Amino acid sequence: MNEEKLAHLLEQVKTGQCGIDEAIADLKRLPAEDIGFACLDHHRTLRTGIPEVVFGENKSAEQICEIFSRMVQRDGAVMATRISVEKAVVVCGKFPDAEYHEAARIVVVKKNEDKISGAPIVVASAGTSDIPVAEEVKVTAETLGCEVQPVYDVGVAGIHRLYNRMDVLRCASVVVVVAGMEGALPSVVAGLIDKPVIAVPTSVGYGAGYGGIAALLGMLNSCAPGIAVVNIDNGFGAACMALLIAKGQSK
Amino acid sequence: MNEEKLAHLLEQVKTGQCGIDEAIADLKRLPAEDIGFACLDHHRTLRTGIPEVVFGENKSAEQICEIFSRMVQRDGAVMATRISVEKAVVVCGKFPDAEYHEAARIVVVKKNEDKISGAPIVVASAGTSDIPVAEEVKVTAETLGCEVQPVYDVGVAGIHRLYNRMDVLRCASVVVVVAGMEGALPSVVAGLIDKPVIAVPTSVGYGAGYGGIAALLGMLNSCAPGIAVVNIDNGFGAACMALLIAKGQSK
Amino acid sequence: MNEEKLAHLLEQVKTGQCGIDEAIADLKRLPAEDIGFACLDHHRTLRTGIPEVVFGENKSAEQICEIFSRMVQRDGAVMATRISVEKAVVVCGKFPDAEYHEAARIVVVKKNEDKISGAPIVVASAGTSDIPVAEEVKVTAETLGCEVQPVYDVGVAGIHRLYNRMDVLRCASVVVVVAGMEGALPSVVAGLIDKPVIAVPTSVGYGAGYGGIAALLGMLNSCAPGIAVVNIDNGFGAACMALLIAKGQSK
Amino acid sequence: MNEEKLAHLLEQVKTGQCGIDEAIADLKRLPAEDIGFACLDHHRTLRTGIPEVVFGENKSAEQICEIFSRMVQRDGAVMATRISVEKAVVVCGKFPDAEYHEAARIVVVKKNEDKISGAPIVVASAGTSDIPVAEEVKVTAETLGCEVQPVYDVGVAGIHRLYNRMDVLRCASVVVVVAGMEGALPSVVAGLIDKPVIAVPTSVGYGAGYGGIAALLGMLNSCAPGIAVVNIDNGFGAACMALLIAKGQSK
Amino acid sequence: MNEEKLAHLLEQVKTGQCGIDEAIADLKRLPAEDIGFACLDHHRTLRTGIPEVVFGENKSAEQICEIFSRMVQRDGAVMATRISVEKAVVVCGKFPDAEYHEAARIVVVKKNEDKISGAPIVVASAGTSDIPVAEEVKVTAETLGCEVQPVYDVGVAGIHRLYNRMDVLRCASVVVVVAGMEGALPSVVAGLIDKPVIAVPTSVGYGAGYGGIAALLGMLNSCAPGIAVVNIDNGFGAACMALLIAKGQSK
Amino acid sequence: MNEEKLAHLLEQVKTGQCGIDEAIADLKRLPAEDIGFACLDHHRTLRTGIPEVVFGENKSAEQICEIFSRMVQRDGAVMATRISVEKAVVVCGKFPDAEYHEAARIVVVKKNEDKISGAPIVVASAGTSDIPVAEEVKVTAETLGCEVQPVYDVGVAGIHRLYNRMDVLRCASVVVVVAGMEGALPSVVAGLIDKPVIAVPTSVGYGAGYGGIAALLGMLNSCAPGIAVVNIDNGFGAACMALLIAKGQSK
Amino acid sequence: MNEEKLAHLLEQVKTGQCGIDEAIADLKRLPAEDIGFACLDHHRTLRTGIPEVVFGENKSAEQICEIFSRMVQRDGAVMATRISVEKAVVVCGKFPDAEYHEAARIVVVKKNEDKISGAPIVVASAGTSDIPVAEEVKVTAETLGCEVQPVYDVGVAGIHRLYNRMDVLRCASVVVVVAGMEGALPSVVAGLIDKPVIAVPTSVGYGAGYGGIAALLGMLNSCAPGIAVVNIDNGFGAACMALLIAKGQSK
Amino acid sequence: MNEEKLAHLLEQVKTGQCGIDEAIADLKRLPAEDIGFACLDHHRTLRTGIPEVVFGENKSAEQICEIFSRMVQRDGAVMATRISVEKAVVVCGKFPDAEYHEAARIVVVKKNEDKISGAPIVVASAGTSDIPVAEEVKVTAETLGCEVQPVYDVGVAGIHRLYNRMDVLRCASVVVVVAGMEGALPSVVAGLIDKPVIAVPTSVGYGAGYGGIAALLGMLNSCAPGIAVVNIDNGFGAACMALLIAKGQSK
Repeated sequence: MNEEKLAHLLEQVKTGQCGIDEAIADLKRLPAEDIGFACLDHHRTLRTGIPEVVFGENKSAEQICEIFSRMVQRDGAVMATRISVEKAVVVCGKFPDAEYHEAARIVVVKKNEDKISGAPIVVASAGTSDIPVAEEVKVTAETLGCEVQPVYDVGVAGIHRLYNRMDVLRCASVVVVVAGMEGALPSVVAGLIDKPVIAVPTSVGYGAGYGGIAALLGMLNSCAPGIAVVNIDNGFGAACMALLIAKGQSK
Repeated sequence: MNEEKLAHLLEQVKTGQCGIDEAIADLKRLPAEDIGFACLDHHRTLRTGIPEVVFGENKSAEQICEIFSRMVQRDGAVMATRISVEKAVVVCGKFPDAEYHEAARIVVVKKNEDKISGAPIVVASAGTSDIPVAEEVKVTAETLGCEVQPVYDVGVAGIHRLYNRMDVLRCASVVVVVAGMEGALPSVVAGLIDKPVIAVPTSVGYGAGYGGIAALLGMLNSCAPGIAVVNIDNGFGAACMALLIAKGQSK
Repeated sequence: MNEEKLAHLLEQVKTGQCGIDEAIADLKRLPAEDIGFACLDHHRTLRTGIPEVVFGENKSAEQICEIFSRMVQRDGAVMATRISVEKAVVVCGKFPDAEYHEAARIVVVKKNEDKISGAPIVVASAGTSDIPVAEEVKVTAETLGCEVQPVYDVGVAGIHRLYNRMDVLRCASVVVVVAGMEGALPSVVAGLIDKPVIAVPTSVGYGAGYGGIAALLGMLNSCAPGIAVVNIDNGFGAACMALLIAKGQSK
Repeated sequence: MNEEKLAHLLEQVKTGQCGIDEAIADLKRLPAEDIGFACLDHHRTLRTGIPEVVFGENKSAEQICEIFSRMVQRDGAVMATRISVEKAVVVCGKFPDAEYHEAARIVVVKKNEDKISGAPIVVASAGTSDIPVAEEVKVTAETLGCEVQPVYDVGVAGIHRLYNRMDVLRCASVVVVVAGMEGALPSVVAGLIDKPVIAVPTSVGYGAGYGGIAALLGMLNSCAPGIAVVNIDNGFGAACMALLIAKGQSK
Repeated sequence: MNEEKLAHLLEQVKTGQCGIDEAIADLKRLPAEDIGFACLDHHRTLRTGIPEVVFGENKSAEQICEIFSRMVQRDGAVMATRISVEKAVVVCGKFPDAEYHEAARIVVVKKNEDKISGAPIVVASAGTSDIPVAEEVKVTAETLGCEVQPVYDVGVAGIHRLYNRMDVLRCASVVVVVAGMEGALPSVVAGLIDKPVIAVPTSVGYGAGYGGIAALLGMLNSCAPGIAVVNIDNGFGAACMALLIAKGQSK
Repeated sequence: MNEEKLAHLLEQVKTGQCGIDEAIADLKRLPAEDIGFACLDHHRTLRTGIPEVVFGENKSAEQICEIFSRMVQRDGAVMATRISVEKAVVVCGKFPDAEYHEAARIVVVKKNEDKISGAPIVVASAGTSDIPVAEEVKVTAETLGCEVQPVYDVGVAGIHRLYNRMDVLRCASVVVVVAGMEGALPSVVAGLIDKPVIAVPTSVGYGAGYGGIAALLGMLNSCAPGIAVVNIDNGFGAACMALLIAKGQSK
Repeated sequence: MNEEKLAHLLEQVKTGQCGIDEAIADLKRLPAEDIGFACLDHHRTLRTGIPEVVFGENKSAEQICEIFSRMVQRDGAVMATRISVEKAVVVCGKFPDAEYHEAARIVVVKKNEDKISGAPIVVASAGTSDIPVAEEVKVTAETLGCEVQPVYDVGVAGIHRLYNRMDVLRCASVVVVVAGMEGALPSVVAGLIDKPVIAVPTSVGYGAGYGGIAALLGMLNSCAPGIAVVNIDNGFGAACMALLIAKGQSK
Repeated sequence: MNEEKLAHLLEQVKTGQCGIDEAIADLKRLPAEDIGFACLDHHRTLRTGIPEVVFGENKSAEQICEIFSRMVQRDGAVMATRISVEKAVVVCGKFPDAEYHEAARIVVVKKNEDKISGAPIVVASAGTSDIPVAEEVKVTAETLGCEVQPVYDVGVAGIHRLYNRMDVLRCASVVVVVAGMEGALPSVVAGLIDKPVIAVPTSVGYGAGYGGIAALLGMLNSCAPGIAVVNIDNGFGAACMALLIAKGQSK
């Protein structure tokens, strides 16, 4: 559309219907659309075979359905995070292709998509209570085309559990480590492998855990290099970061 | 420059030296420069008769002199905030036109500039310790072309002092209120006049004042409508906001 | 009333019914009423054609109705913010003239009022979740007599959307920017236009967003001059500040 | 009781039934009871005609009734704070002498008591939302024997309302000032009178008010001397402090 | 002065030189001065025999001397807090009547003053490191006319030290308790006596004491009624509050 | 199991079925299992006669039952903390051997176990509202084999109550002190006895107590040596720490 | 002394020189001294062969020498923590018996003392920067009579270093774990051994470590039971806690 | 070494010199050394051609020289961060091969090393004050073998500067974005490209920037997916994370 408009303008310049000064003035008033081009291109590439993502936390089942209708029509695929069982029932009732991942609280409507080749993303979680966030990582990354290997319940209070899974960790393209409470697991993992570690603090804990601050600060202050951190409970964000890293390796 | 480049491209389109597809491709790769146009225009307007502003806090006298050299050459005017007496001595030694406002900690090198017409900006301060920040507001706004009326030392602990100056406050285009400690003055001022109030918390105080947090939170939670707040000790930012408001009225 | 009382006192002084010392003593005991005069005048001016505003958050539908009854009787107009759908049903049932703005959560009972002339207030919002606060700004400002132009869903993660609306932003009297999460939009807007920007952080987000602190701090620390900030989710306060700025320009 | 025990021991020393060394050993093992004496005396004095106070927030109606039964039996009087209407219905149903102060959320069962003579305690509140806390101050102090004079809704956003009540404030033995949001009222009051001011921050507000922190910090950092502060929403504590001050004056 | 002006106006009204309407207009424009009357009266009373107080923390010795010159000339007395030894040497060199209280960091120039009768203020401190703040309380209150009884180094880690001084505490008009670290002493004191307790948190401590926050929060959350709190290290403020309480009793 | 595997490997080395290089390679790939040995041994020891502990806060009754089934089958014993009455009814319905400690919110299914000899653990609580956490300490420690002596409601606001129980405190192996609000009790206790004190802050309180922060900071900043602190409301953690200390003494 | 006084009083009761009522009154006025007995006894026991401890941080070398003079005279022993090299030179110059432990920043003047028998205290530190705090633990505990085994530089970023020292850790009476940054080491240690772990957060780190908060929160939220925490950098406090635990085992 | 020891043990098992039970016992006591193997291997790989890194902030020039001596001897290479000019002069005086990067505050002694192939790391900085941290990223990554492309001074207040560099950003393997104040740049960058973004908040700013908290929170709460965050001013950590990502792509 914009490209057509631009072509039309240039055509007019070529044919003399539009003077150069006039064309410059027109072009100046349209920079956003020019960027819009780039961004849309970029977005289109990003979106090929990849469902759009809706943050479902504060949206009603009805609102989610409405967004899904538009997105499925446009892209043939859509994905929503933070969806309770109650909302999922409604959404899946309306969209027969929708699949609900209960542990991850994610609903996905997807067409077939190209897989990203290469080593899998490993998702490690410290405790059983961190699994919902770990599953958000896993389902998001899988939906976006990555292979994911889960390594759950390997927290530092019983560190031998982690050692039993070192071979899996060492073969990752990138490791996402999900931990609440004191959030110490990423430091230990990063001290043992030479892969980038994405640390996800969770709000698991109570008292001076302050809804994930203790874990967040612990991860930011890690004594082990090779760690970067996302927001508390932000499994989706960690999956996106991991995806971009894995994609870089698959090229 | 960019405009020339653009004209050249369009000329080539017109003469057929450059195909339309090729031109579209070129234009797509240059959106930033298009925006650059707009921004530069905008900046040029902004800068007419207005000195550039340098944040001097963490810069050495030498660094400030170097920046001044380039800016004076380009614009004939420059202004720097957060300049200690020691640095000012060095800077004013090198730039004979430079004027140092000690209380405001500002150095100004300026050409004559157009004044903004209309009602003055009033700068009110709660205590004598808040005056350096109030002076930063005053000297910044005056340098940028506004008339400023100071109303100092009218804090809420002796509120009759404020009442004695109500006539000045009522004639303002906008009132900047500078206060530390509990930061209560903006609420009282905003409850008495119908002008926009820009509240500047200062780091004056100790203990549970936490370097200005108490004043900042107080101002954000004001029970009187018509107040907006800038960062702690940010006299420069308040002056810029006030200037934009005053300019709107002078048009 | 007070003026009558004062006239009566002076009459008594004139006629010798009241001695000068006695009159001085009386006058000293009444300063509040003198100020009361001014304040009432001032308030009367403020209130002309403008509904009183009730903060509805912690009030029951019954309490709101009771306040409305008194205010409508006195002023013929009233407005209440933070009204849930449930409360709105009750209130609108009792006051047939009342209009409920659901997105803004505002109920308005208003007489016709004089419009403020001049450029519109522009309200920009970063995400769709910020729209309720943006609507609080819009409905408040419109109710108070301003023209408002909304520019929604133009957050920095897809900045081309903002560029598409630059012409609207550039024609504003003042721009209110509503954003949650990292609250970066006001900096970008203020870097592109020469109008005052009022930044409204919202509690949209989770984890280390801490109910709007991240956005609030981001806005207070903006690297772009010409921004002032109101409390988290305080759409009403931003509208009042914007109104006072717009009124200054309309005179 | 303890005194009897002590008398009995000394009697035995006197009669030689108990040796001095033995008595010393006994006395050493009983210091707590000695202090207990003092404390009980002190407590008894405190309690004369004064109901015991129960913090009702986290107690069920049943638990409150059970405590009331024991206290009424022992002291003939009892008082409980933070009692919801629902709990009050249950409690007043069981204790026909109980009186519920709904605004203050206090239930009182009391015998007649001696009044504290002298100037009244004045309780000032900034907004209507602060009244529940102000009423907790008022009902507590009245129940404990003080005369209380309320001065409500005199916040700094419309400071003429405060001036209209200066005569009441000036006659106080002590002024309790209750305010939420920015908590500026105590500073203004303390700047106008020469009585001790007890400042009570309330959790009224939202956003960066952080449940009363803004008001608390504002009050702690007051620029006016003669203010001391109690916990957020702690009307009961303020009333106790005021009572002790008023009692000192009545002696 | 103002009173003369007012008398003159009324005289003119009486003689008909000034019409009533004209007089009303005049009076309306002067409310601040009317309040000024009251405030000045009030201030004059406050200041009788009482030195003005200068906060010396961020002022140079020269600035302090300049303020002293003006104040001594006007009032014959002055007092400054937070004065280092270095500044005191300069100030006392210029003002031979000045007396420096090193522990309290206070300089006083005073004429003889009327003493406040009645029971003394007791100042209790927890540790030896809290003594500077305790001395600020003591010297301030003594300078303002109160008798003060110090009870130092009676912290809760060796609570028998407090018991040895109970007789002194019980005879106080009001007790100021100064404590850093966990700030537990005020709770224990308030649990043992029936006098108002003013708690002063100090910045003594390290680590999670956060410059006095731990003590401040502890005191605000005291389980013992009859306590109110001032800012961290605010010995001066505590002394003013204590003075107002003691004065109420001496009347 | 692992040991068998290891023995088998070594047997193969001995008989030449497995070469030394091959055995080294095998052993290197199994370090975690080696540690697993140690840990499992260690765990087995820890678990002898001691029920496993489930944190029940965010688990449904169904989830708890499922975990119980597996654990009872494996260990014959299990224990779960933070169990509401509603969940307890379900769990105890399914497990007839289960015992619910309502005040402590703990469910225990246990075989008979060896008692830890020596002096009892003393659990002191400041107020009645702290008792649920104190009971979590008590029931946990008893379930794990320790004798526990409760000393409840001995807070610093009435310190004579503590003195009456000094003999109990002095005979402890370790004292767990549970307190909310200002959390001053551990300091007083540690100043009176020569036993290790484990301090447990509780979330009891309101306003500036911030859900236990005031108590936590108070305890961390205690002026009395011999105190260490656990998380807010972490009765279970305090009991484990106390158990390890008591076990050290019983050997 | 007090005991003599008490004996004298009882003697007078016995001989009739003092009536029983009179004696009761006397005894009531002396409870503090009775407790004083106990406390002094208790203190004497505590202090036998143990140097008094002076917190040297904010004291001058002169003040420390003065305190040392009195203490050495009374007890023959004294110890001071947080002593810089500069102060140590002065103090050791005056007290030839004084020994300075530079890494621990402790000066000790001690007579021979009885050793506490039993297993040693193990002090583990995460990084080399944590060693000063670890040394404060070590020197304090050794000075107070305990054997101490250091295990330094075994942080979680290279966890094999910890495994190499497991035999030392397993033989401890109690383990003090000193760590800054994310403070993860105590969790790992407590997951591997069955001894009580005292965690000491240090202020080592920068940025979001906030002077030790990250480590402190991490330790409080540890997922491993059997940990209790002391204040940031509080090596002395950890040593005292460890000493009391070790003493319990040696009895 | 350890492998030899292990081989020796197995040899002894093979020859019967060591029984199987004895060997198992030995092996159990050595797991750490087994892990040590793995870790050492892993470390050796990591360290090939890569200098060790010393955090120089709190170390004296002498301490740094001492560490350098050992490391250069062992590895032939070493690198230290946070080195002031003063320290650098001393270190470079002793190590003629050492090179000081003043803006980055890094000293490097390095042998030739293998370069990591593939797309460069791009380091973008918002303001000129952020350049020291950006340079720490650049010099670290270059020293560790990566090509780095700097894009400085492209903050959001003049966003056209960023657009001019889009081609560089789009060709990165990974983009490190360094920003202080409100920290908005990472969001904008991540919204424009499909590469992983590592966000580095800096302590640049003042007032409510709180030494980098505003930037840190802003980055954690970014509305753009594909961002992970490191500690404030942690250029070194960001470079390590970027290196691991770039290495993954170069394989």
